[in-house]
Formats: sequence, structure tokens, C-alpha cells
Amino acid sequence: MPTLRIALAQDNPIVGDLDHNADLVRRAASAATAAGAHLLATGEQSLTGYPVEDLALRHSFVEASRDRLVRLAEEIAEDGNGSLPVAVGFLDADGPMGSTSGHGIRNAMALLQDGKVLFRYYKRQLPNYGVFDEDRYFVEGHELHLARIGGVDVAFTICHDMWDEGVPFTAAAEAGAGFVVNINASPYEQGKHERRIALVRERAAQVGAPVAYLNVVGGQDEIVFDGGSFIADAKGKILSSAHRFASELLITDVECPAAGNDIANHTSTLMSASLHVLSEAPAAVERRIEPSFAPDLDRLEEVWSALRLGLHDYVSKNGFPSVLLGLSGGIDSAVTAVLARDALGGDRVYTVANPSQYSSQHSLDDAADLAQRCGLHHVVEPIQPIVDAYLSEIAVSGLALENLQARVRGVIWMSLSNQHGHLVLAAGNKSEYAVGYSTLYGDSCGGFAPIKDVLKTLVYELANWRNEKARSLGETEPIPENIILKPPSAELRPDQLDSDSLPDYAVLDGILVGYVDGDAGREDLVEQGYPADVVERIAGLVDRAEYKRRQSAPGTKITVKSFGRDRRLPITNHFRGK
Amino acid sequence: MPTLRIALAQDNPIVGDLDHNADLVRRAASAATAAGAHLLATGEQSLTGYPVEDLALRHSFVEASRDRLVRLAEEIAEDGNGSLPVAVGFLDADGPMGSTSGHGIRNAMALLQDGKVLFRYYKRQLPNYGVFDEDRYFVEGHELHLARIGGVDVAFTICHDMWDEGVPFTAAAEAGAGFVVNINASPYEQGKHERRIALVRERAAQVGAPVAYLNVVGGQDEIVFDGGSFIADAKGKILSSAHRFASELLITDVECPAAGNDIANHTSTLMSASLHVLSEAPAAVERRIEPSFAPDLDRLEEVWSALRLGLHDYVSKNGFPSVLLGLSGGIDSAVTAVLARDALGGDRVYTVANPSQYSSQHSLDDAADLAQRCGLHHVVEPIQPIVDAYLSEIAVSGLALENLQARVRGVIWMSLSNQHGHLVLAAGNKSEYAVGYSTLYGDSCGGFAPIKDVLKTLVYELANWRNEKARSLGETEPIPENIILKPPSAELRPDQLDSDSLPDYAVLDGILVGYVDGDAGREDLVEQGYPADVVERIAGLVDRAEYKRRQSAPGTKITVKSFGRDRRLPITNHFRGK
Repeated sequence: MPTLRIALAQDNPIVGDLDHNADLVRRAASAATAAGAHLLATGEQSLTGYPVEDLALRHSFVEASRDRLVRLAEEIAEDGNGSLPVAVGFLDADGPMGSTSGHGIRNAMALLQDGKVLFRYYKRQLPNYGVFDEDRYFVEGHELHLARIGGVDVAFTICHDMWDEGVPFTAAAEAGAGFVVNINASPYEQGKHERRIALVRERAAQVGAPVAYLNVVGGQDEIVFDGGSFIADAKGKILSSAHRFASELLITDVECPAAGNDIANHTSTLMSASLHVLSEAPAAVERRIEPSFAPDLDRLEEVWSALRLGLHDYVSKNGFPSVLLGLSGGIDSAVTAVLARDALGGDRVYTVANPSQYSSQHSLDDAADLAQRCGLHHVVEPIQPIVDAYLSEIAVSGLALENLQARVRGVIWMSLSNQHGHLVLAAGNKSEYAVGYSTLYGDSCGGFAPIKDVLKTLVYELANWRNEKARSLGETEPIPENIILKPPSAELRPDQLDSDSLPDYAVLDGILVGYVDGDAGREDLVEQGYPADVVERIAGLVDRAEYKRRQSAPGTKITVKSFGRDRRLPITNHFRGK
Repeated sequence: MPTLRIALAQDNPIVGDLDHNADLVRRAASAATAAGAHLLATGEQSLTGYPVEDLALRHSFVEASRDRLVRLAEEIAEDGNGSLPVAVGFLDADGPMGSTSGHGIRNAMALLQDGKVLFRYYKRQLPNYGVFDEDRYFVEGHELHLARIGGVDVAFTICHDMWDEGVPFTAAAEAGAGFVVNINASPYEQGKHERRIALVRERAAQVGAPVAYLNVVGGQDEIVFDGGSFIADAKGKILSSAHRFASELLITDVECPAAGNDIANHTSTLMSASLHVLSEAPAAVERRIEPSFAPDLDRLEEVWSALRLGLHDYVSKNGFPSVLLGLSGGIDSAVTAVLARDALGGDRVYTVANPSQYSSQHSLDDAADLAQRCGLHHVVEPIQPIVDAYLSEIAVSGLALENLQARVRGVIWMSLSNQHGHLVLAAGNKSEYAVGYSTLYGDSCGGFAPIKDVLKTLVYELANWRNEKARSLGETEPIPENIILKPPSAELRPDQLDSDSLPDYAVLDGILVGYVDGDAGREDLVEQGYPADVVERIAGLVDRAEYKRRQSAPGTKITVKSFGRDRRLPITNHFRGK
């Protein structure tokens, strides 16, 4: 069997930065050529970044992508890497342009060689659920392309082509492909990587040939791409794997079934198929490269890595020098601060404690302790004189007074942000966002919400895991134990505790997993064993908080259904049944 | 030719309120029966409201819709209106349920008679652009249904079925339909009603039979349905028309081609077709009803009506007793306040003036004058002591100080809202939202932004139009002339004017129409005659303000592309080219 040396460029493109992204491809092409690779693949829309959203409707952007692709082909050749076939994801159009209807816009992949574009493949299966809106932009393709490289017929597919019916894989099997490349921009969510591995194994068995799964890496607003590219052979054996949440050029020697002689056989009942012969002579490698395998991440390390990268890339891609957040002494802001330190370094993290008359001394002490342990900038700005200034103007009491305190804090953070250029981080967790236990324009202030998709119970797990990790490395635990052990409180009125008005977080989070993530009805949840009155109350809180969530900062998606583009509910909504 | 008496129920359903919506249908059925109608049609998803968004993914909601439909059929019969065929829009499912994949969920219409569901039609053409996400939820239908009523074969279609290729209309023509009903939930935008009329005329000519266009009415978050139902005959003559922006039962006697005898002819190459024979005897009416025609609205009255209804329905459907807004003495808050008065009555409108040291006396006077003219509640709450309280705590200057003033105002409004239950209105216009000339958590505070989609130049046109309308009715002009005539200023620093940092609003709005509404590139705009440096600057401002818009309140869509679900751009976006 021919042996192909496959290079997979697991890179971190930036949406809209075509030159930067083209440079990533050029650098990968140089490295792959130096390593003697027969083929280099880059991620889905690696030239434009993903998702470009409504930029796809902009004529000038589509043209920029098309033009940049042609120039990239030339540049790769000028770099001396022209003989290497390079697969590049980009935005294309083959229909009439200048309209905003989306007709003719394509989620495309081109194979480049010798300074030219050999062919353009158009994604067949367009996802239009969850965070995906591809039917809004793209027209599906119906032609499979195979490139004969080193005597192996390599078929190319894009991301969702592998899922659902997997039509292009069936077509590739019918066309006798000896290797299938699947390029992705696949957002992270918990448990998804395991599903990908199972699916790739299934597809490889279906085709009877190895399959390369290539994912990009990096944060883009609400989503984070987790990398984890790998190659599986027809028996399901993993031949190599790249790290999660980090850029890597994964090079693997792969034995592939040789191409048949009969080109006429390269047809499929599902898609038309084109064969492009690049090189007939069976590929071989002089000395096999030792395959590399990335370590598996445990559940909490995986989540932490996703949150850290999502935060890091939002800050760096949007050019913020530093972040600022209120440090209350509670668990949420503590975890957010440590995440920020892990993502950016302590010197780029500014924290503020804003005690009111209801703040406890232990909260102030715990906040200062954490900032000191983590090497964060920390100041204390009491809010009571400012609250009093409002109260001498307007009469507020009860919940309105609680909200006022939170808003005074928000204004202080935003003022410091405006004055010094910090990005303000909102420290709310998913349980809070779900039931609306936050003050709009108060503690929800901020440009990014790192733990927005993390349920409260998982916040605690992460805190314990992060401290345990520090212990295992012989480092100081970043989070003071008191922050983890004390009962959670907003400290907006005397002796307030979260448990005054909410069920145990284990119960609350269980209901939320069903009602939010699972679209379950009230009756379904009662059948699962939750008390009917609690379900009714929590579901009502979730429904009524939609208006707050609509105005909330984006945060990294880690669950199957995050608040944001992933979950689209009306604000005006009278449904309360079942 | 048979003469059908057609009743079109142009109603205002509430998303998720199945009982309320069913009651609207029942009341219409009683009125239509009393009027001797042969057929009653109600709007697209008239039972569930539209759009239900991700409620469609909730098993319990789909079941509630299906169950409520069956019960509604029985109720109509119990009301004594069973012999009237009633077309009802609802949410259906014919595939496996309990999944969140959307498979098998249908945008459906049922024909009810004698307490039973005669058939269910599934929308053929699903819109997935602009504010529409129907591919996210629904599976398209492939079967046309015709009901023989009074010897006329009536075909049923839903909304977008009429647009684009109009497949169901071609199928209806092939199947020999003598009348076509098209039920809609079609959101308002400027110029759209004229396009509907032209399109219905085209379809009626294509089928060779009259077509009824039925739209719903009412506000739902960002969109407002404008009604304006009408019937056109095969020659394009408008036979009757309902008011825009108001509920109405439109009853019209329509001569229709009689059904052919050969049922076998009722086929189409594009869709399968089913014929349901309800009554063969040619329908006739004893005494023709005089057709009614709604007055045309001029351009500005149409926009005002849309904004007024959008605001009214957001407030009433979400149960707010009253609204509150800051009245700066400027044009935006003035127009917003008058809109609120027109929508809700002056007694439900609370306004606050929040002078700082930079506020002019004329602004305070103008605000008080407007409040007095319109009968609004008005208070003055100076902000300087509160701003000073912040400044004694933190050092801010320049733009940060401007933002601080805006945020102190926002906190006062939100505190009054929390204390008294008012909905806070944000008074920003589209030009401001576009270039980011507002303070996040400051003047952008609020649950609803009534003029969010109104460019500044149109704000002035509306102000003049509203005053002119008052003059023509012999009423006091609601907006003091000084508010319209003085140069716009944020009054956040000494002698500040909008024109210090922005081009003329005519130029700015021209660029925005191209860049935002038209997805034009920078080069396109320069070709249109705008100076390159101004285009570059404005486009950059628009791009960089995406993070602010993402956290903004919803507001009524009136243009082809409003900020909100209609326009989806990444925050992290480095594209600056061409």
C-alpha cells in the first residue's frame, strides 16, 4: 500500500483577517514541505475564519476571500512549496453576486498546487441548528472531488459532511477513495470530542480507508474550537492525535489503499465525482515518522482549557491590554479571576472590591487573599457614599436598593474600563443567567462573561479541581478555601443567602439541564423526580429572565445549549403550559 | 361563476398564549358565521403566535399546539359555527418527536369543519434570511390541499409560499384552483406592502383566479406585523382591503371560477395535490356586501403607526403598567416620548430630566415644555452630586467622564423602574446604534428601544410630520419647535455638538443605508460619491460598535435590515478591506 505523509495544520485563524490567516497557511506549508509531507490540509474556512456570519452576505468580503485564495496559491509557490498540494478552506461564490439573498455563496475548500487552484469543493451538508446558521448563507454542493496523490485517491469533505447521513462519505466509498480528509471548524462542547472520534471510526469503516479529522483551534466570540485533530484507520485505530486547545502541525505517515486503475469507476449515485490526477506513483516515505499522540484531558481540565482559551482569544483578538472584574469574595468572581490569570497572566488582571454596608469582612479578606495569591492588581472602592448620594436624590428600597448597589459597582468598573482600557469581565454563571439572579447593568456589566455557560455546581467543581492541580504541582492554591466552603450570598441585604430564595444548586442545576439544555417540559421534569412546585417556579424564572439574557455579554459555550445564538427564545412569550 | 363570501380574520395573537389566540379564532368564527361567510381564514401560526422561535424545539409546546387545535375545532362547533370551514395556522409535527433536531416539525395550517380537522397543509417554502430562521425548525411540505367549497376549489398556502419560485401557486394553477388563500405573519418594513400587492397580483394572474392575502397584526419583540390584508382578482383588481396596524375582520364577496368536474385533473408536477369536497353546489350570496377599502397611509404615517404598535404591544403583552424615559431636551427622547404617549396615553408615560453641569437651560425648559404639552409625568433629578460622589472615589476624565454622566442617568432610571415597575425606554436612533454613539449601560439602558431602527434624518421627518398632523387636527404641537431646530448635542462636555465628531446626518445616514442595510463595501460607497475618508471612518465605527449593539434592547424593525436578529455580525472581526 502507498504510504502518504499527511500534514494537518491545526491553526487559530482570526475572522476577517485574511492576511494573517494566509500567513498561517504559508507557514504550515513551509513546515510540511520541510517534513516531506505529500499533502497539507488546513481547517474549514481557514482563510476567512469561522463563522463569518453576515460577512458572507457582503459582496466585498466574498470577493476578498476569492482573491486572497488565488494570491495564496501563488505565495505558496513563491515560498518554494508549490509542489505540495494544500487544502484551504475559504468563502466562495459561484452564483450571481451582488445580491443579499445568499444564493451562490459557498462554504468551500480549494486544493492548491503549483501556484494554481486545482479544484473547489463545496460543502454538501450545511448545519442549521444550535449556533449554526449555514442555510442562511450557503448553497450546498453536489460534486465530490478526489485528488490522486501518490497513487491514492484522496476525497475531501467539510465538517458537517461527516454527520447525519454523511452523504459525501457514502459517495467517497462508492468512488473508491483511499483516504478521506474532513476539515472542520467544530465548536467545543462537553462530550463532543468523544462523539467525533466514534463517528470518524464509523466513517473510516464505511469507506474502508483512513480518515483524517482536522479541526481548528481558538476562540471566536461565544464559541471556542478545541482542535484535537486525529487520524483513524479503516479498523478504527487512532494513528495520531493533536493536542486540544492548542495550535499544532500534526504529521502522520498513513498507509492507504492504492487507487484502482479504472477512472470510470469513480462515480457515485449520490454526488457527481471528479478525479484530479496529481501523481500516480505510489507514495512512500524513506523513514517513518514516529506518530504523536496528545494526552487525553480529564473532564474538568477540558472545561477549564476551553474557558481559558475562549477568554484569552476574546481579549487578544479584540486588542484589550488587560481585564478588570469585581472581586466580591464569592466563588464566581474567584473562579473568573483565576481563569483570567491563567489566560493572561496576573499582571493583566485588575480586580476591585466594592464593599457596601452589607459586605462582610471575610468577603473583603478573601478577595484580597485571592488577588495576593494570584498576583493580581487589587483595589478597594467602597460604594456606600455613592449609594447614599443616589438615595439623597431618589427614594428606593427593597429589591430596587439591592439592584442599586450592584449598579453602582457596575458604573465604577465601567468607568475604570473607560479610563484605562480594561475589558470588564462579568462573573455570572449559567445558573444565575438562567433564573435571572443578576442585576441588569450591575453585576452583569462587562464585555465578556467567561463562565456564562458554567452551572454553579460545575463552578465549584472547577474551583476544587484548580486548587487540587496547584497542590499537585506544589504551587499555592489560587482560591482561598473559605471562598469554596462558605455558603453563597449576594450580600445585598443583611444576612442574605442564595438558599433563601433558590433550591439547592444541585436541584436547580438538574432542573436547568432539563429545561434549558434539553428543552424538556415541566411535566417531563416532574416525571424525572423534581418537585412540581419547584419546577414551576424555576421554569417561570427562566422564562421571565429572557429579556436580561438578551442584553448580556457573550461567554464561552461549553454545554450542548448555551445562552446566546445557541438558544433563541422570544422575550414576549406567554407559554406556561406542561 | 360561484360567489364565495370570504372572511379574513386579521387578528393580533400573542406568542405562546394558545387560549387567547384560540378565543380570537372563535370570535372571528362567530362573526363570520353571522355574516354568512363561506370560509374563514386566520393568520400564519394564528394559534401559537409567530415567531415562536426555539419554543418549536420544545416537545411540550408542539404537543400543546396540536392538542389545542383539536379542541378549537370542537369549540367552534360547540359555538354553533361548525358548518363554517375555518383555516387555522398552528405548529404541527408529523415526524418523530422528543428530539431537538427539528425533524418533523411543521409550519402548518389546518382546515376545521364540523368539530373536526379536515386536513393539514405544511408550508412549502421556508424563509431563512433576515429575521427568519425557519430552516432551523421546520421541514417543508410537499402536498397541496384544495377544498371544494361552494363549487370552488380553494387552495391554501402560507406566507413565503408566495415569494421566490412560488411553487405552491404554480401547483395551484396546475390543479385548477378557483381561489387561493395565502395566510401570513409578515413583518413590516418600509416599502414591503407595495411589494406584496405587486406579488399577489402576479400570482393571481398566474393562477387565473382571485387570491386572498391575509396578514396578522401586532408587535412581537423586534418585529411588528402590519396587517393590510386584501383580495386581488385574476386581473389584479383589488377587491377589498383591511386597515394597516389594526385588527379587522375583512369580509368580501368574491366571484371565483367554478371547479372542473374531473378530479383527476387536480394534480401537479411540483407537489402532490389532494382535493377535499366540502360542498359542490355553487355558492351564492343573497345580497352583496359592499366591499371595504382601508385608506392608504403616507410614508411617515406608516412608519409612525409601526413604531407605535410595536411599542404598545411590547408594553402590553409583557404586562408593564407604564414606561419611563430620560427626557434630555433633544430630538430622540422627544420623539420617543410622543410615540409613547400616542401608544399608551400620557398618564402611563414618566419622564425624567437629569441635568448635569453641562446641561443647558434650554434643554431643561424644552423637556418640561414637551412633558407639559403631552400630559406626561415629569420630574427633574440633577446628577451632579452623584457624579461628584463617584469622582471623590475614582479618578475619571475625558470620555470616561462623559460616559459616567450617562451611566448615572441610567442608574436613576433603572432604580425608578425597579421601584415603580415602569419599563425603561432607550431613546437611541439607528444612526447612533450604528456608529456606537451611546454609552453602554448609560443612555442605552432600557427594556425596549422604540426608535432603534429609525435613522436620525427620519427622526426629524417624523417629528415634523407629527407636529404637522397635530396642527391639521387643531391640536397643540407635541414637540416644541426649539427641539427640532437646535443643533443636536449630547451635552456631556462644554459646547459639545454632534457635528464635532460626525458628518452631517444626511451624509452619515446615506453611508449607513449602504453599509448596514445594503451590505455595501467601502469601495461601493466611494463609487456612490461619499468621500473615502468619511466612508472609512464610519465603516470602522460601525464595525467596532458591534459589541455594544449585542447588549442593546430590542426595538421595532422598520427597515430592510434592523440591528438585532436581522443582522448577525461577529464582534471579533478583523475585516477592514474594500
